[in-house]
Amino acid sequence: MTIAFRTIAGNEGPTSARAGVLSTDRGDVHTPAFMPVGTLATVKSLLPEEVRATGAGILLVNAYHLFLRPGSDQVAALGGVHRFMDWPGPILSDSGGFQVFSLANLRKLTDEGVVFRSHIDGSEHRYTPELAVEVQCQLGVDIAMPLDHVVPGDTASGPARDAAERTLRWFDRSQAAAANGPAVFAIVQGGVDPELRRWHARELVARDAPGYAIGGLSVGESKEDMHAMLDAVVPELPRQKPRYLMGVGSPEDLVNGVARGVDMFDCVLPTRLGRNGALFTRTGRINIANARFALDPNPPDPECDCLCCSRFSAAYLHHLFRNGELLGYRLATIHNVRTLVRLCEQMRIAIEAGAFDEFSREFLASYSPADEGVRRQQQAQYRSRPRTTES
Amino acid sequence: MTIAFRTIAGNEGPTSARAGVLSTDRGDVHTPAFMPVGTLATVKSLLPEEVRATGAGILLVNAYHLFLRPGSDQVAALGGVHRFMDWPGPILSDSGGFQVFSLANLRKLTDEGVVFRSHIDGSEHRYTPELAVEVQCQLGVDIAMPLDHVVPGDTASGPARDAAERTLRWFDRSQAAAANGPAVFAIVQGGVDPELRRWHARELVARDAPGYAIGGLSVGESKEDMHAMLDAVVPELPRQKPRYLMGVGSPEDLVNGVARGVDMFDCVLPTRLGRNGALFTRTGRINIANARFALDPNPPDPECDCLCCSRFSAAYLHHLFRNGELLGYRLATIHNVRTLVRLCEQMRIAIEAGAFDEFSREFLASYSPADEGVRRQQQAQYRSRPRTTES
Repeated sequence: MTIAFRTIAGNEGPTSARAGVLSTDRGDVHTPAFMPVGTLATVKSLLPEEVRATGAGILLVNAYHLFLRPGSDQVAALGGVHRFMDWPGPILSDSGGFQVFSLANLRKLTDEGVVFRSHIDGSEHRYTPELAVEVQCQLGVDIAMPLDHVVPGDTASGPARDAAERTLRWFDRSQAAAANGPAVFAIVQGGVDPELRRWHARELVARDAPGYAIGGLSVGESKEDMHAMLDAVVPELPRQKPRYLMGVGSPEDLVNGVARGVDMFDCVLPTRLGRNGALFTRTGRINIANARFALDPNPPDPECDCLCCSRFSAAYLHHLFRNGELLGYRLATIHNVRTLVRLCEQMRIAIEAGAFDEFSREFLASYSPADEGVRRQQQAQYRSRPRTTES
Repeated sequence: MTIAFRTIAGNEGPTSARAGVLSTDRGDVHTPAFMPVGTLATVKSLLPEEVRATGAGILLVNAYHLFLRPGSDQVAALGGVHRFMDWPGPILSDSGGFQVFSLANLRKLTDEGVVFRSHIDGSEHRYTPELAVEVQCQLGVDIAMPLDHVVPGDTASGPARDAAERTLRWFDRSQAAAANGPAVFAIVQGGVDPELRRWHARELVARDAPGYAIGGLSVGESKEDMHAMLDAVVPELPRQKPRYLMGVGSPEDLVNGVARGVDMFDCVLPTRLGRNGALFTRTGRINIANARFALDPNPPDPECDCLCCSRFSAAYLHHLFRNGELLGYRLATIHNVRTLVRLCEQMRIAIEAGAFDEFSREFLASYSPADEGVRRQQQAQYRSRPRTTES
């Protein structure tokens, strides 16, 4: 697989917002781009054409999950993940580093790799940088992530440095293993230490990856730390390569990320929140199960152009959620994904018009993020508890 | 609402298979017709256009469920059930007789009506023939069912006669209450007593309904009894009115029903089985979660033209079910509904070609119904236990 990236607007300063095009063998993706998460080769509840109809041009699957079930060799035997799930566009896969260090029961960590117990059935597996690449080759994805050593957001500098160094050694082995497979991005780690982050970024840049991911963020650290790490890392990255902020995020996170020069995002937030009845609107989140929507004949979000808001009332969506109807999960998922994809479209337009700063200022002034306490609680869950398969 | 019915083929003998057209203000429906069940104004997991794409031209909602939640008055305030769920085609509603006598906690039964406790929250409600019609007027459906007194399949003749007589008195009141609302079908009851069934049919025919439903079947009686009741009732019904066998059924039930002159069917079977991973095929049921499908690159049903079988492998559907993925429920539902609707299409074509007997013989010879023990057990559950909302 080959990929290419070019910026088409913005990109003036080392951390400026920019609009670009990521070209893959399976089509072009306009950036800034939000990638819906299809962990198990399905964006939960949606058909591929519904994902596409939100405007999303690329999606993410998870190598860890597909390695365990049904097995990446089996996906390969069935023609690869694109055919398996009938999504013809580009696919990026996460290696499973995040999952191995959080979701699975980690048994042993050495420079060679990890031994973990499956979160499904407790079976024991060895996982190495080479195997992570092989798994992603078997899936046949367009962009692969190398195995990395992810540490929680509050990790001290010493262990964070050890993890970053190991991630670097693993990246060398991943590159060597990739051959004619997917484009393997590098992942910048380094906890919340800006010096360590900068050093790690420079080391990875010296190895010339086709794209640079920023990992180990949104794992319990503060928003201030996340922004400080982006401010440290992005200036080290080459201007003509795509930058991908992993596992992020919320509408405000996307705006803050693009403002710091990020091009790509993925997160389970829109799909998971949607299944819980929480919908993004232009000013913040609403919960459609709230009694105030029971008789509301207006769309759930009157400013939204998604399938759900174009055709159904808040009262109907409320009714579906109150009764646990599967269609409700679907409609709310479509709404939330469309909202993040449209936000990316709006940012792109603003960047092309040279008006991103104004857009960003207005957006952040009028959008109320979820309660900070709730957010920290959610992030703490990421670090300490078994996850659903969508993690 | 006005409806009309004409037969276009078959219909030679009093119980012959026939093909026809049911015309409503919201469009024509070709018969034999299977009506997917959308109890709470949603065919579970599907959007209206997906239901339509199976070939279904009419669907069923349940007045009992919508009366309790969100309230038929609230559906009316939101523009009626067609707009509420965005289904522009004809809708038939069941009155709730079956639910009141099985799902709800029946507190009091008099000629005036019933008092029951909601299966949702235990709240107490009065329900009368007049209210059942009013509820269905508020929903704005095209065809309504009158409140009837449904008895289990093993009810003795005496109580069955009492119930049939009450159903008759209630039908008179339902007709009087209907005015300019939906077309109100009559429902033939009478347990498994052919004489009682014949008498009841004649009494209802004398009252000139726009269509005739046959109720109180598939509620625990044997298949032989069900067929005997159809053989008793259908000859009493006018040839130029539609005949609707309520709550039926399986593929073999549809063929056996059409062979006895039935035009319309509804049943939760395809949707409920689908959510359990049980798929109809031309020769019987399969369970897609079975390990033998784990690596199967073929469609779940290689003879099927549904969205699921056209695009996805049995292995992918297996994977979705093994992981509890919502898309699996959807795809299996689409497959099962399409299979029953296509069976109706095939019967229509056979009738028009004068070849229904042959079609029926071949179908029944090659189709293996689910194990009879399983079937009886399922039916016993219908009678004795609280139900899911789809009942």
